[in-house]
Amino acid sequence: MARAAGAVARLSGVSRERFRQDIYPLREPVVLKGIDLGICTTKWTVDYLSQTAGDKEVKIHVSPVPQMDFLSKNFVYSPVHLSHFVIDLQVIKSSFRVLFDFPRTLPFDVFVRRAAEVKHTEYFISEDEKYYLRSLGEDPRKDIADIRKQFPSLAKDIQIPEYFEKEQFFSSVFRISSAGLQLWTHYDIMDNFLIQVVGKKRVVLYNPRDAPYLYLSGTKSEVLNVDNPDLEKYPLFMKARCYECSLEAGDVLFIPALWFHNVISEEFGVGVNVFWKHLPSECYDKTDTYGNKDPTAASRALQILDRALKTLEELPEEYQDFYARRMVLRIQERAFSSSYE
Amino acid sequence: MARAAGAVARLSGVSRERFRQDIYPLREPVVLKGIDLGICTTKWTVDYLSQTAGDKEVKIHVSPVPQMDFLSKNFVYSPVHLSHFVIDLQVIKSSFRVLFDFPRTLPFDVFVRRAAEVKHTEYFISEDEKYYLRSLGEDPRKDIADIRKQFPSLAKDIQIPEYFEKEQFFSSVFRISSAGLQLWTHYDIMDNFLIQVVGKKRVVLYNPRDAPYLYLSGTKSEVLNVDNPDLEKYPLFMKARCYECSLEAGDVLFIPALWFHNVISEEFGVGVNVFWKHLPSECYDKTDTYGNKDPTAASRALQILDRALKTLEELPEEYQDFYARRMVLRIQERAFSSSYE
Repeated sequence: MARAAGAVARLSGVSRERFRQDIYPLREPVVLKGIDLGICTTKWTVDYLSQTAGDKEVKIHVSPVPQMDFLSKNFVYSPVHLSHFVIDLQVIKSSFRVLFDFPRTLPFDVFVRRAAEVKHTEYFISEDEKYYLRSLGEDPRKDIADIRKQFPSLAKDIQIPEYFEKEQFFSSVFRISSAGLQLWTHYDIMDNFLIQVVGKKRVVLYNPRDAPYLYLSGTKSEVLNVDNPDLEKYPLFMKARCYECSLEAGDVLFIPALWFHNVISEEFGVGVNVFWKHLPSECYDKTDTYGNKDPTAASRALQILDRALKTLEELPEEYQDFYARRMVLRIQERAFSSSYE
Repeated sequence: MARAAGAVARLSGVSRERFRQDIYPLREPVVLKGIDLGICTTKWTVDYLSQTAGDKEVKIHVSPVPQMDFLSKNFVYSPVHLSHFVIDLQVIKSSFRVLFDFPRTLPFDVFVRRAAEVKHTEYFISEDEKYYLRSLGEDPRKDIADIRKQFPSLAKDIQIPEYFEKEQFFSSVFRISSAGLQLWTHYDIMDNFLIQVVGKKRVVLYNPRDAPYLYLSGTKSEVLNVDNPDLEKYPLFMKARCYECSLEAGDVLFIPALWFHNVISEEFGVGVNVFWKHLPSECYDKTDTYGNKDPTAASRALQILDRALKTLEELPEEYQDFYARRMVLRIQERAFSSSYE
């Protein structure tokens, strides 16, 4: 397990003003307790949710194991692989290895009932498969998730703490998950309120400056099992300092942009999360509907770096290695923050 | 002191063929003993050198202390600073701090006699100042040092081991230094035979992959005192693995391009070093007369990197730091050699 850096601060009854003045500028995660979220905290039972939102089709993830795995995600998209999948599943289950999630579509009411039950009579893979919804815009390539648009009948029950300016709003995402489901460690590029309405969650967070220890693949960490990582495969993970918190129904977790988070639903969970812009609007990629595309200046810098690395390829390996090390030194000198240790 | 990695191999009577087939491809330093260097090894006394090369003006370095310091080099160029320099020198000498070298001009015969004596009756700074010659082309901005051109009467005495193709030849540099003089740790971009004709030297070398621990300023290390480094100021220097060797008169040290070397003249020393091209000619900067400008692809890569870092500056510090770390990860993945541990 990564080094424990400590618990996340828990603060009660924080007003919009106090948050904006004293907490937000620190750029650290914090659990806000006792915020008025509206009637949702008592009203959102499984029956109410399924009756109110009805049989609208939703795209969901189905996972044979609690830890969803983005790495082998593509494996189950095609029916050809599905037959292999069934065979592999036996191997997986018998060896306790963690594998892939499973994207499928269900009517919302059927989905909610399945997510709330532990053993299923109807299922895709197995009677103990896990379900996960992360709501999307109508056309996910163009539209941004907004619970007020996709689930208006439920959105009226929740009062989202708008501790930011209206123009900063980016999206509001409805999230429902089975007990036990674990979402991979990742970062978002927007600031984030994770509003826990129903159920308990455990969230493990990592400071953005620990990125070098998280074995990133894009915005996600390849280390799926954060509590019991494979240290032979991921030796540097030991160096990552983890911050932990428990979320009870009614809690709001502030996750600053770039902070890595791994979310474990300890119970059937219903939540909404709100993303908002920390940087001026023009810094963000206009085509980003998920809030996870790097700011345009960062993408450009990474693209320019790729050209530099392409240029280095003209040299033999020993020279490439040497000048790559000099490049690293230059980046550390010029762009690493001096405010960190 | 840096970690000792071991001694440099010493091999006797290595032929051109053996060197090219078995030694050169390893890209590691090696001391070649018993190579026929011609009559110079017995003929080059102080009297002979000064009589033969005469009173040709040479540009030399004069240092008040054994360790030459490139960091404060500019300090003594102007006469205005010279008065300050005299005052500062007292401070320096009394506090045993290591400081600057002193570029001046002398007739060659006067220079050789001064370099060979320990106490001077005539001097620039102090009676125990140290002298150093690194010969240059006629116009150092355009011409490359070649002992055959600048010191033809001495060049005929030395038989340079041409263990490379004629077209690979870059320069031959005449080097004379006072006993005790220490040349800062630096790398050259050409392959190098350091031919020790008179006197003893100690050479401390570092593998190019230890560049991150050497506190580089361009091609030079800021850690001047390699035997007793200031570890408060240079903590990472501890990680650099040093390779050491002693050179006796008649020895030839092969220093592969990019290998860092620190040269200590234990006695009055006379040597010649030959640089030759390891890479195809077109890889090198056409304006490089010293053999220490980075290969053009490397310079371009570093320039492109600077543009990437400039782009990152559009973002606030915490984002810059984060994406700088991601850039470092990308460089490590793509350009670090996998043949190193």
